[in-house]
Amino acid sequence: MSDTIDLWFSCGSTYTMLTLFRLDEVEERTGARFALRPFYLADILTELGSWPFPEGSPKTRYMWRDLERRAIDLGLSPKVPLPYPAPKSALANQVAHIALKRNWGRRYLAEMARAWLEDGLMPGSDESLSRCLSVVGQDVDAVLNEVERLGIHEILVSETAEARHAGLFGSPICVVDSELFWGDDRVDDAFVWANGGSPRWNA
Amino acid sequence: MSDTIDLWFSCGSTYTMLTLFRLDEVEERTGARFALRPFYLADILTELGSWPFPEGSPKTRYMWRDLERRAIDLGLSPKVPLPYPAPKSALANQVAHIALKRNWGRRYLAEMARAWLEDGLMPGSDESLSRCLSVVGQDVDAVLNEVERLGIHEILVSETAEARHAGLFGSPICVVDSELFWGDDRVDDAFVWANGGSPRWNA
Repeated sequence: MSDTIDLWFSCGSTYTMLTLFRLDEVEERTGARFALRPFYLADILTELGSWPFPEGSPKTRYMWRDLERRAIDLGLSPKVPLPYPAPKSALANQVAHIALKRNWGRRYLAEMARAWLEDGLMPGSDESLSRCLSVVGQDVDAVLNEVERLGIHEILVSETAEARHAGLFGSPICVVDSELFWGDDRVDDAFVWANGGSPRWNA
Repeated sequence: MSDTIDLWFSCGSTYTMLTLFRLDEVEERTGARFALRPFYLADILTELGSWPFPEGSPKTRYMWRDLERRAIDLGLSPKVPLPYPAPKSALANQVAHIALKRNWGRRYLAEMARAWLEDGLMPGSDESLSRCLSVVGQDVDAVLNEVERLGIHEILVSETAEARHAGLFGSPICVVDSELFWGDDRVDDAFVWANGGSPRWNA
């Protein structure tokens, strides 16, 4: 039994955008509390030599359609295929780290997800930062100065080392008591585990 | 709206074993009817140059634990990691094709899945064929003779060409009206789609 569910994520990941968009609903419905932890997934994928969605592959074509169906399910109007991968995902993760220390963090991340899914604004791009920070009443330059001043890059390098050590290889991944739950599809399973598991796992 | 759900699968796939084991329950619960279509997924993955689970990778370690949790959920006692990949998956698919023309086909496939998940018998191996065919009262030599006599390999090559054309890249994949639903996780979504979609997809 565990009170906290670490939800590791990277702003460069496609399905992660669904999770960030719907996380408030999950918490309200389940009573779970997720601790959001951005990390540099791109660095780990590069080390592993395994990018999940090569352009033009059948799996990638499927991913866009699957993502589209699930985004529609959330009430969104996605326009797939979307710009991907995000060249500035590292910056997006740094801003996410700052945001999550503020009371506007969750709302900012949901807005970032929506801006990508509906309007193709890539996380970390000037357009995404400008629009999504303004929605939560924040100034881009002020936030970017904070990123520098607080050494967020170094913090995320350290977080990424912890993620690597924990065996993370994708996003989102929930971690509860060393159990990993990969994907937007497994967020609810992480909650079940955190609450002592379902009878099935304890049988 | 569609009456049939084509469920394409390969006996070499890990999560497919969960689907084959639980398919009767899905049909009973939902009223859906799945048309099972084995194909040579290994050929397509080789062409695409993308094997899903490289030995020793973090993703592969995760897959075994995730598969274990889900197999336990189905009342099984899995012993992971299991022998993988199956060197005789092509033969396993040929026998599956024959089996599905008989009234013992589904039961045989569920038994094949269980024999792998619980006892590590690789689909297509002598041990798997012998045990699982005997459970359904069939003789291995007679079935293998049928495979030859009816030219099942050529049929599966043709089925695989259709699968390739449909953009299949994994197993199981349900196909309803050209919509793909990949994975044991999406079998229920295929059923929802076949029944006219949920309000979410028609919004």
